[in-house]
Formats: sequence, C-alpha cells, structure tokens
Amino acid sequence: MYQQISDGLRQKIADGTLPAGAQLPTEADLIAQFGVGRGTVRQALSALVNEGLVVPMRPRGYFVKERQPMVFRPQAEFRKRPYSAEMDAFVTEHSAEGRKPRQLIEVAIVEPAPDIAKRLHLEAGELAAVRRRIRWLDGEPFNVNDSYFPLDIVRDSEIMRPEDITRGANEVLAELGYRQVRALDELYVRMPTPDEAHRLELGPGSPVAYHVCTGFTADGRPVRVAVTVLPGDRHVISYERQWEQPQDGAE
Amino acid sequence: MYQQISDGLRQKIADGTLPAGAQLPTEADLIAQFGVGRGTVRQALSALVNEGLVVPMRPRGYFVKERQPMVFRPQAEFRKRPYSAEMDAFVTEHSAEGRKPRQLIEVAIVEPAPDIAKRLHLEAGELAAVRRRIRWLDGEPFNVNDSYFPLDIVRDSEIMRPEDITRGANEVLAELGYRQVRALDELYVRMPTPDEAHRLELGPGSPVAYHVCTGFTADGRPVRVAVTVLPGDRHVISYERQWEQPQDGAE
Repeated sequence: MYQQISDGLRQKIADGTLPAGAQLPTEADLIAQFGVGRGTVRQALSALVNEGLVVPMRPRGYFVKERQPMVFRPQAEFRKRPYSAEMDAFVTEHSAEGRKPRQLIEVAIVEPAPDIAKRLHLEAGELAAVRRRIRWLDGEPFNVNDSYFPLDIVRDSEIMRPEDITRGANEVLAELGYRQVRALDELYVRMPTPDEAHRLELGPGSPVAYHVCTGFTADGRPVRVAVTVLPGDRHVISYERQWEQPQDGAE
Repeated sequence: MYQQISDGLRQKIADGTLPAGAQLPTEADLIAQFGVGRGTVRQALSALVNEGLVVPMRPRGYFVKERQPMVFRPQAEFRKRPYSAEMDAFVTEHSAEGRKPRQLIEVAIVEPAPDIAKRLHLEAGELAAVRRRIRWLDGEPFNVNDSYFPLDIVRDSEIMRPEDITRGANEVLAELGYRQVRALDELYVRMPTPDEAHRLELGPGSPVAYHVCTGFTADGRPVRVAVTVLPGDRHVISYERQWEQPQDGAE
C-alpha cells in the first residue's frame, strides 16, 4: 500500500506536476486521501526521502528537492572553450552565473593512500604534497578536491602555499618542467562516507561521484592525481567527444 | 555507540583487513566484543548495508560486497583503441575477460519523454524509434541502454529490427546519410528508481550513473540519444583527455 502512495508522488515529481521546491500533500491529506494509517504514509514519504527526491522540513512538511546542477567539465582544464556549439549552449544553460563562489585551500605533506601512491608511481614511504580544497556556491558546499603531487618536484614551488594560484597549478607544473599533455579520468559512483556526508552536508539518498584524474607528461610520468568528490544532486558531469577516423562502429 | 562499531568495521573494509567477499564478525561476536545489545549491533550493520559496503546473506551473516567493476569507456564508440599506454593498461586491468556477456534487445516506436524529445529536436507528437537493451555479464545484469533515433530517418533500416547490429547502429546511421561527427555526454548521479532497482537487481546503497549521450552530424543535427543506466558498484566510467593548446591554465 505504501508503495502505491510513493509511486503516485514519484510520478508527479517526474512529470513536473510537483515541481522542484513544491510542498507535498501533508501527512493528514494523504491519510484522508488513501484511507490508511499514519505509519503507512510515513513509510511512503521516507522511501522518497531515501531516494533523494524529497526533503523533510519539519514542522512545515515535505518538499520536492531543488536541483540546480553545476556543470563539471574536466576537459575545461586543458581547453577552456568548448569545441561545439552544443556544449557551449549546455554550459550556458547550467552556468553558476549569479551564484557566489568561495573556496578554502590547505596544503599538507602526506604519505598518500595506496591507491594514490600507485597512480603517482610513488614507492612506499615516498611523500606527496596535497592541496585540499572545499568549494562553496552561495554558502552551500559544492565539492571537495584533493590534488596530489610528488613532493620532490613541487617542494619549492607555489603549489606549497595554501592560496589560489591564478594561472593554475598545472601551469606551475609546466614551468617546473613537467607539462601535462594527457590525463586519464576515472569516475566511480557510490554512497558518501560519513566524513564526506558531513563535510558536504549531504542528506539521505545523496550519492556522490568520485572522480580521479591522473595527469601525465609527454614521457608518461604521472605528476598529479586530483580526486574530486561531487555530490550527485549538485553536479552534471559533461564531456565532448569527436569522431576520430573511419572504423568498424560499435553500437 | 553504533557509530563506533560501524566506523571500526568501515575502516577495516577500507584498509583491506576485511577484503571483498570476507565475512564480518557475527552479531553474537559484536555483542560480546562491545558489550552492547543486539539492536545496537543491527543498527551498525544496517548503516554499512545502506552505504553499499556490506551485503546481508541470511542466515549465514554479513559479507563485504564484491566489486569487479567493468570499464565503461564512451570514447570507444568513436575510437576503439585507447590513445595512451595508460588507458590501455587501465582497460586491461578492468577487462571483463572470461565473463560471459549476453544481451536482450527490443525495439519500440514511442513518443519520447520531454527531455529526450528536446535533445533530439523533436516537436510535440513527433515519434522516435527506441532500441532498448539490457546487458548481462555472467548472469548479472550490468546495465540498461536505451537508444533513441528520429523515426523519420531510421524507419526502413536495420535499426528497427530487434537484433544485434554487428557493424553498429552508428554505422547504419552513417549509411543513411547521418554520420555522427561529435557527441555530448552528460552524467548524472542519483539513486535508482524502483523500476531500475528491480531490472538491475540493485541492493540498498547502490546508486547509479545516468549517462545521456547525444550524437550530432557535421551540420549539428542530433540523430541519436543514448541513455545508459550504470550501477555504481559494477562500473568505472573512464575518459582520456589530451592537452589542446597553450592557454591560461585552470587549476
């Protein structure tokens, strides 16, 4: 029975009858409408909360979650302007225009976790510098980005200062003789750890993308691993692709 | 108190003390070890289940979830071989080798949902052909892929037949005069709908990536929208990027 109630509400959210920010019918309304007990109604509402569709705001009631996703476009790192008119339009549609950005940067010297050390080709005991950033938009934490560099190549550079680098850490690496010419992106989708949920103020039913980018010099040396935790309800991750050469197509 | 128990177990899973497939201590063990009641122990275990880290297998107990993610590499569509040695190695490491693939294809003519119609530049009432595929590996459903095409351009083609197209639907489109030269990928991260959870046999704490790829011809006409639902616990999504031109770097 509770599924019938949650299915009905989910449908109204999906088709826009209940748009973002709208208040759901109250518990009393649903009890009267379906002739069921309060327990059943709460079960239906809590299913929607756990799917991340609805936010409880006591004592006012339940509201459809607002989403205003920001475009996360890894390719912007190597190429600011999109290739295509379509991406241009897409970025404009989802731009953070008018929203106020803020970030907090800290720098540490660490023995990185095995998965990071492996990607940087560091031996056990070798150290990395890490720049940790939290970014906010309009006071809401948007994502967490930790960038790791082999300590021996960045030790005496600006990368060690916990300040914004206007021309970018990649440019600093290039000036140090380690220009990145390619990168490998990995995207994992999972629930947040309790620590991530806390730092990013994530509600129930809010999974994250865990984005790991490894940057390589022309001779294949990995010089940077950037790990970004992206709350799914605040981002759309986007890429452009171009057709390369005639070949047997893959469906 | 329950958080202390779940934190301890989470740490052991993270550092590999409890590897994939390992059995967790039993409820009785945890009750004895921490001197707490069964309710507290169950709360701790159920937190880990909801984070997607642990699978309950009654009556045997709780086990660390096994993950053998498959690489989902959208760029393979336009270019089979990776650009770089790094991607080559990465794909090999995560290859589905030895696992048995299977797919089910059905074709339908539909009035697509507004978000699909908009991407295909279809007017209200215009129809699309959709090829719906479910793919399994070793009997486990891996992902669901729905590819939409404007009906007027594919009406008399192989795309309408519910069979595998060896040379690929993209090649069929090219033969029809609609070769795609670029694509725009959007990735959304969210909890599955109940229908997706059912079709993909998803347990608790299993979010999905919702991947929407729109393919364009050289003159900017969208001729295909492919929607893929990728369970986070079965995939790593991966891209290669190449540095384009000297520019002001973005950190």
